[in-house]
Formats: sequence, structure tokens, C-alpha cells
Amino acid sequence: MKIAVDGMGGDYAPGVVVEGLTIALADFPEYEFVLVGHTAKLKFYLEKYGIANNPRITLVHADTVCEMSEPSAVSVRKKRNSSITTCAKLLKEGAVDAMVTPGHTGATVAATKVLVRSLPGIDRPGLAASLPAQQGRFILMDAGANPDCTPVNLVQFAIMGETYAQYLFKDKAPKVGLLSVGGEDNKGKSLTKESFSLIEELPINFVGNVEADTVFEGAADVLIADGFAGNVMLKGIEGLAKSTLFWLKKVLSKNALRLVGAMLAKNAFRELKAFGDADDIGGAPLLGINGICIIGHGSSSPKAVRNAIRVAGECVEFDLNGKIIAKLQEAHATTEELSARLLEEK
Amino acid sequence: MKIAVDGMGGDYAPGVVVEGLTIALADFPEYEFVLVGHTAKLKFYLEKYGIANNPRITLVHADTVCEMSEPSAVSVRKKRNSSITTCAKLLKEGAVDAMVTPGHTGATVAATKVLVRSLPGIDRPGLAASLPAQQGRFILMDAGANPDCTPVNLVQFAIMGETYAQYLFKDKAPKVGLLSVGGEDNKGKSLTKESFSLIEELPINFVGNVEADTVFEGAADVLIADGFAGNVMLKGIEGLAKSTLFWLKKVLSKNALRLVGAMLAKNAFRELKAFGDADDIGGAPLLGINGICIIGHGSSSPKAVRNAIRVAGECVEFDLNGKIIAKLQEAHATTEELSARLLEEK
Repeated sequence: MKIAVDGMGGDYAPGVVVEGLTIALADFPEYEFVLVGHTAKLKFYLEKYGIANNPRITLVHADTVCEMSEPSAVSVRKKRNSSITTCAKLLKEGAVDAMVTPGHTGATVAATKVLVRSLPGIDRPGLAASLPAQQGRFILMDAGANPDCTPVNLVQFAIMGETYAQYLFKDKAPKVGLLSVGGEDNKGKSLTKESFSLIEELPINFVGNVEADTVFEGAADVLIADGFAGNVMLKGIEGLAKSTLFWLKKVLSKNALRLVGAMLAKNAFRELKAFGDADDIGGAPLLGINGICIIGHGSSSPKAVRNAIRVAGECVEFDLNGKIIAKLQEAHATTEELSARLLEEK
Repeated sequence: MKIAVDGMGGDYAPGVVVEGLTIALADFPEYEFVLVGHTAKLKFYLEKYGIANNPRITLVHADTVCEMSEPSAVSVRKKRNSSITTCAKLLKEGAVDAMVTPGHTGATVAATKVLVRSLPGIDRPGLAASLPAQQGRFILMDAGANPDCTPVNLVQFAIMGETYAQYLFKDKAPKVGLLSVGGEDNKGKSLTKESFSLIEELPINFVGNVEADTVFEGAADVLIADGFAGNVMLKGIEGLAKSTLFWLKKVLSKNALRLVGAMLAKNAFRELKAFGDADDIGGAPLLGINGICIIGHGSSSPKAVRNAIRVAGECVEFDLNGKIIAKLQEAHATTEELSARLLEEK
């Protein structure tokens, strides 16, 4: 197992990435790593964490970095030697089994689409974000890679999301729901109504339309959405979560009594905050490209980097992409209308 | 000022509605009311709250109620004498200046569309929900009335949303943003990209694309969205807010120390919860119909009902609909491309 790690990705690179890699080296003794980025900068941190001479790490130099603030298209076009593009090249060439980056989501999507290409039968790769439900988590797919989608894209997201959920939740028949504006079958917009009748035919555990509130109560393990609606949901709840902490701080610091109360319960607030973290998973896979690619949050912790590496390795071992292709073929074989439709759109 | 109040709307009708009406009677001595619903049931509560013989209340009987669990189309088609439909008829006939219902949103949208019709120049009415920002509030329009939208619909939402924000925030130039998946001008889906170039021409304070997270930090006072994306955002944050209270309770009750802390700070949690309430506004107006209609939350409190009545009256006094029509005409006159486009789509 060889994994390319983008050493320059994220807000706290390369320090945090190298620290996460240090943990992964210890925890996954069978993995080898290609650490990509500005070699001189990386070496400084490799020495700092005492892994400069580890034979399981190969360094690959990359001149530039896709800055988090840059538009992704510009970043990919102008920076052909960025750490993200270099990771994508390694993945394309088969030099590594998977790549991990806590870097620029848009640039990673753009670079892998161009270089690594889609899996056979997949038109558009999608981002499978994992969000906290009241009990456990659920997967939101697509979380933002494709603002405009066709019904066929959503069908493919359903298959890919189900397969990823089978791995992540160790559940053979995870509940797949279609994000909509009402629970009844006939609710939604034209895209979701048309998608509904196609997804219904798939050999998956489809639970129908699911609203953005009931999914938190366990209505679905996988929520299928176009990348616009998915991203609005993701960003909306990120915004509210941040605001809730802001309001909580404000109301708790209003007087001395409340401050004492807050101090006594301070571990509870730490735990509350942790519900929002995806540290246990480390990031969101970009599903549908011809390789395994995990994209971490820009503010990934070392633990998140370590777990993104774990998930990347496990997805390879699970043969995630092989299973997606097999499921796609099963869908073609069992659902005539869908098959015709899939061919027609090509 | 005469306001029709749907006495049967919402989860706790008619008790909560009549209690809210009792407060409104005292607070707004110049308002008159038409209370709509099952007369016998209403009379019981009117007597309970000591307003059975108040000369400022007229009772109008309505046989049926649109149940919150019913699909809206069925509800409107089958229940021609429901309290919502009766309110809409009164509004259409000019018997009242405004209507207020804490009832079925979908049924209200459907009934008013058919009976009250749109304002001249408006193709689709939209729901203007008000959400808490870190400081103050922002308006989300459309929050769910129109799952499928055209660019022209979004242009009209921008004009209506701006006018409503001028009233609600007492701000002559509220910031109007377009909900998108990136802050840059060229980000978005085809609908929003096309809408962007039209909204940009409007004589309003357009701040461009705004993401669903930064709006909580004050990026916009009005967030324009198609009803699908708007509803996903609204429901998504409702779901997270509910889950956050669930998690908070869970982590605070883990041990005695935390429980004591929570008890000391209990007023803080009450205040935190209040950030989510729209009690001060009482509901969301359905903008773009030829009349004033405020739709409250199904779980409206008496205070929320009272404030929905206040907002309804104030919207009439503000001449909200007159101002919307004037702004539409101004937009037609100043923006040639837009004007051509608006005519073309007719």
C-alpha cells in the first residue's frame, strides 16, 4: 500500500500534515508514503518529528501550492507543478494506490478529473461528505463538486454513496435517501422528481425523498443531492454551527453565575464541539475517479490527517472502486429503463 | 385595518391563536379582526380568554381544516371551505387588508395563488423566511414555495426581498446576496449564473454571490435562492439546531458536575434557544401575492401569533405591495436587458 500525501495542503501545512504522517507511520506499519511538496520545507518538519530518514517515506518535489483562497480553475491551469497536481499525476501513473490532501477541494476535483479521469460508467465524480446525525453520521453526496447535475448523475451518486456507506458504516444495506423539499414521493424539483423514478429502480435500499432536517434523526445513511443543494446544506449547517458556538459564548459570559456554570461543564462543551469534527474520518472521498482520493478539511488536525490516510488505505483494501463498477453493471443489467437512459445520455 | 386570522391553523389551534389574538386586541387598539374557523370551537376559547363579545372581532365559519400532515394540493382541492381557503377568499374580496395563518404553508401558498393571484409583474410568489445571523437576522427568499425557478423568478425575489427588508430592518439599502456555492462572481449553477447578470442590473444594493455560511456573519441581509435550495438551507439548519440541543442535553447530563454547571447557566441555554425563535416576527410573509399574507410556524406561540398580526398590519401601513410594484417598474425602466428578458418570458 503506497499513499501520496499532499504535504502542502491545508491551512497549517506542512507542519500539521507531517505530524499526522508521523502518527500514520506508527499506526500503519505496512503502508508506504510519497510525501509531495516543497522539499526543503518538508525536510524541516520531517526532522522536527524525527522521521527524516524513515525508509517508508519518499519525497517528491512540487514547486507551487494551490492556495486555499485561489479560484480552483486558475489554480490548476496556472500551477501545473502544484503539490495537488503532482499527487494526481502519481495516482494516474499508478505510482501510488491512493492520495490524501487536506488542501483545496476545487483544485483537487479539477486536477483529478483531468488527470486521473472517471471510473468507467461514471460521468461525474462527486464529493461524499460525512455529517453528524443525532446518532452516528450520514453521508451527503454530492457535497459540492457538481453544481449542475442530470438525473443520471444522481443515479450514479446513489450507487457510489451506497458503496462508500457499506464500507464506512459496515452496513450491507445502508438507507439511501434523495434530498428533497418534502417527504412524499411526488415532492421536489423537476431534477429530483425525474431522478426519483430512476433511483427507485436501483438494486439499493432506497428510502425515497428525505428532507434536510429529518436526516439528522436517522431518516437516511446516505443523502443524495446535486452539488449545489448539497453544498448549500453543508455550508448552511457549518455556518449555523459556528454561530451557535458564538451565541453560546455570548450567553454564557453574561454574568458570573453562568460563567461558573460554564466552567464546571467545560468538558461538555468540548464534547459538543467534537460532534462537528470529521477527525475520525479525516475527510471526504472524491468518489467516481479512477483511484482513491481523500480530501481533508483545510483546518485538518494531525489526527484528521492520520485518519484520512487510514480511510484512503481502507478504501483501497475494500476495493471501493471495483465494488462501484460491479454495482453499476448490476444496475444496468437489472433496470432496463435506467440502462437505456444511461446509454442515451452518453 | 382589518385582518383575517386563521383560528384553526397550527399545531395548538385554536387555543394558542385565540390567546395571541387576545394580546393583539390590547396592543393594537385600531385593528379589527375576522376570526376564521369552526365557530363553536372558536367561541369556547373566545369565552375562555374573555373576548367573546368584543365588537372588534367578527366570526366567519369554516367547516374544515388543512391538517399539517396533509399534502397541500389535496388539501386545497378537497377542502374548499377550509379556514385557510376562507381567509384567502376574504383577502381576495377585499373584505380584509391582510391575512395571518400559523397553518399549513403549502396549502396557504396554493390557496392564495389560485384565489388572491399574483401582483402585476410578479410570476411566482415566494416565501421570505427570517433567520438568525450572529448579529441580527437575515431574510431567506424563496424558502420553499417554488422548487423550480427561472432567472426571472430570482430577479423578482430580489426586488421583493429587498422591499421587505427595507421594512423589517428599517434599512433603505439592505445588502442583497445571491445564494451560491462560492463567493466569486463566476461560481454557481447555470440558474444562479444567469440570474447574477440580471440581478446585477437591478437598482438595488446587490453584493453578489454569498455562501450559506458567510451569511450568518453578515454577508447579506437578504439571501436570494430558488425554493429548493432555500428550503434545503432552512430545513438543514432547523435539523442541526434541533440536534445541537439534543447533543447539548446529552453531554451536559453525563455527570453530576456538568449537571450542576448546566443548572447554574440554565438561563443562558434558554436564551440560546430563543435565538432560533422567530417569535419577534411571528412568521414569514408570502411575497408577491396581491395582498398581505403572513404564514406562521406550525408551533407558533401566542406571542408569535400576536407578532404575525403586528407584521401583517405594518406591511399594509408600509404599503409593501405598492413599493414592490414601484420597484419593479423602476427596474423595467432602468435595465433594458432585464426588461426585454422579463417580457420575453411572459
